[in-house]
Amino acid sequence: MTKGKVYLIGAGPGDPELITLRGVRALGLADVVLYDALAHPALLKHARAGAELRSVGKRYGEDSFSQDAINSELVDLARAGKIVARLKGGDPLLFARGAEEVETLSHAGIPFEIIPGIPSPTGAAAYAGISLTHRDLSSSVAFITGTESPGKERTAHDWSKLATATQTLCVIMGMKRLGEITSALVAHGRDPATPAVVVQWGTWPRQRVLEGTVADIAGRAELEGIANPAVVVIGEVGRLRDRMRWFDQLPLFGKRILVTRPGHQAEDTARAVRERGAEPVVVPAIEIVAPPDVQAFARCLDDLGSYDVVAFTSANGVHRTMDALRASRRDARAFGRAMVAAIGPGTESALLRSGVVADVVATEFRGEGLAASIVEALARRPSMGARVLLLRALVARDALPAI
Amino acid sequence: MTKGKVYLIGAGPGDPELITLRGVRALGLADVVLYDALAHPALLKHARAGAELRSVGKRYGEDSFSQDAINSELVDLARAGKIVARLKGGDPLLFARGAEEVETLSHAGIPFEIIPGIPSPTGAAAYAGISLTHRDLSSSVAFITGTESPGKERTAHDWSKLATATQTLCVIMGMKRLGEITSALVAHGRDPATPAVVVQWGTWPRQRVLEGTVADIAGRAELEGIANPAVVVIGEVGRLRDRMRWFDQLPLFGKRILVTRPGHQAEDTARAVRERGAEPVVVPAIEIVAPPDVQAFARCLDDLGSYDVVAFTSANGVHRTMDALRASRRDARAFGRAMVAAIGPGTESALLRSGVVADVVATEFRGEGLAASIVEALARRPSMGARVLLLRALVARDALPAI
Repeated sequence: MTKGKVYLIGAGPGDPELITLRGVRALGLADVVLYDALAHPALLKHARAGAELRSVGKRYGEDSFSQDAINSELVDLARAGKIVARLKGGDPLLFARGAEEVETLSHAGIPFEIIPGIPSPTGAAAYAGISLTHRDLSSSVAFITGTESPGKERTAHDWSKLATATQTLCVIMGMKRLGEITSALVAHGRDPATPAVVVQWGTWPRQRVLEGTVADIAGRAELEGIANPAVVVIGEVGRLRDRMRWFDQLPLFGKRILVTRPGHQAEDTARAVRERGAEPVVVPAIEIVAPPDVQAFARCLDDLGSYDVVAFTSANGVHRTMDALRASRRDARAFGRAMVAAIGPGTESALLRSGVVADVVATEFRGEGLAASIVEALARRPSMGARVLLLRALVARDALPAI
Repeated sequence: MTKGKVYLIGAGPGDPELITLRGVRALGLADVVLYDALAHPALLKHARAGAELRSVGKRYGEDSFSQDAINSELVDLARAGKIVARLKGGDPLLFARGAEEVETLSHAGIPFEIIPGIPSPTGAAAYAGISLTHRDLSSSVAFITGTESPGKERTAHDWSKLATATQTLCVIMGMKRLGEITSALVAHGRDPATPAVVVQWGTWPRQRVLEGTVADIAGRAELEGIANPAVVVIGEVGRLRDRMRWFDQLPLFGKRILVTRPGHQAEDTARAVRERGAEPVVVPAIEIVAPPDVQAFARCLDDLGSYDVVAFTSANGVHRTMDALRASRRDARAFGRAMVAAIGPGTESALLRSGVVADVVATEFRGEGLAASIVEALARRPSMGARVLLLRALVARDALPAI
């Protein structure tokens, strides 16, 4: 029996580009991916084709699946010989109950690896333009969970110490009790004028930042309707944001941008959108499908060498053709003496990635331009009544459901 | 004039696979990379060919270049229109003086982005098998710099609070003053029996972990000669290591493994070595160089179609041949009617990645096997006095200096 293994992977705070290379590699090894709600869905593209992707839906500390159920599931999958990627938001060992999962695995004798992630508070601070430590302003920082009530009789938090122990204090997921927490801080000696900054949805394009003081931040956050997921940064370092902010000043920050390219091409565009601070909404409006007459296409491919020119009008046409050739163990030699033509540089690159150097690239990137460039190239080659095979974009089918 | 830009990038704690995707992408955009001593040298492979790589040599807080000099250099480079990657160990905003660099850039009106890294203490804890927070053991953690003397009159650290404020306390770079620090903790109420774990070189294959208590850890670390870079984790969570350790139990943990493959092929092997916990030492023993008679090689390539078989005996031969064809805008069609043969599956894959499907793959992966498979294939194709071109591994030259 194959031995299963579990990779506990930190997904980072939100921006799907903030996962580590080691995390990406482990996702690619997995037979099953169990992911939390706060792990960005775009991360699932790193799983291999055919891997089972299963949401375990934890969100802001409110479990849809119990922790015990997740623990058992990990053990069962690994015992069945599966490689499991357990993808958790932020860092798996910082306010994420990763330790409980590891302890269960260890007790059951199942091999595991722990791949850290960018913690939500440090990620959110970086994207909000706040340095948690600073040469002149802070040489200590504490992270505390904000889900404990300062009012309850037995709390793990010693507010009399926490209030002033560290120069910077980060409260994680504390929006529900922010009023109680800030009151406790002031009651135990924290200057009410200390800057306090709330970062909601840190590193996501929907990131919201609210600045205030320990005295007024709870009221302002309530007024603005800011809820979890959020981090509150308390300390003089909050003042740095004026000089250090950058994410919310990216050219497309906060916008939602509809990407209608077909699924396999949408990710490049989505990433470019994300890098400029916006949120891509991927809704493929067309879908590339096989040509209706598969036999006719296959006959064309068997006969490629009999044409004078084989012309491609899209990268999709290139992929479909080269995949079909590859499937029958053929390569560029199948074109024989035919010239290969491309409608533009994107199609030319797609050919090159398949090992084919285009003989003709249209100077004007549309049908008419392609025809003109082909005529020109043929004129340089003595030939009469040339046969030209035009491999169009195959079939781009409407992929949107009828409304 | 092109506008320069600076990317402040967290390299993570050591393991070069712990950088983020966004960090890798920014490194690939840079004209100049300014890197610290604690950023793993293997990260520099993400820079584009031709980028200038410059060490600014900061190490354990002792600067070889002054912070002011680095700040000015960033401004000067960006003003000259350069894209600059500033690669810092750990997270750039956690005990790394990244804020000072950003403030300088901001003041000079230079665009920047901040790409967080896995902080050294959370990375080290994960690889040492310690969860900094834990449902039953800790709901708060503080990070403090250990370079401040508890003895000095004005210190930013309020030891009377820090000693017990958080359930977990991480001291960063505190080995020089560990005795003073642990004494201050006990003097201010921390139980001397509290577990204390030192993690030196966290996430590196040379990682060392020393377990003890607040009372005895300083003495034990001195005895063992453990110095910075190190993190000390103080708190009940230290006990988790027994159940959660994994990195130092990987099959090759702590070993140093000599990789003698040529430079461009060494990285894959190095990564496989690192993933098993060992440290690869890359010393290419051979170097692949151009064949001595370049003209003869070029004439062969012009004439490929005149052979019955073109046989490849290594991936290096494939790369050299296909690169040369590509440079003169040719592809697999240059083989014409020649059969393409490969000595084994590695060479076959290299051909496939260049878009060539091998017609013959030797069943026995050596010269004699290749010959036998070619003879067999030729027998199926009526031909007399076949011409076979053998493209050997080109020239593998001794790359080690004479001793």
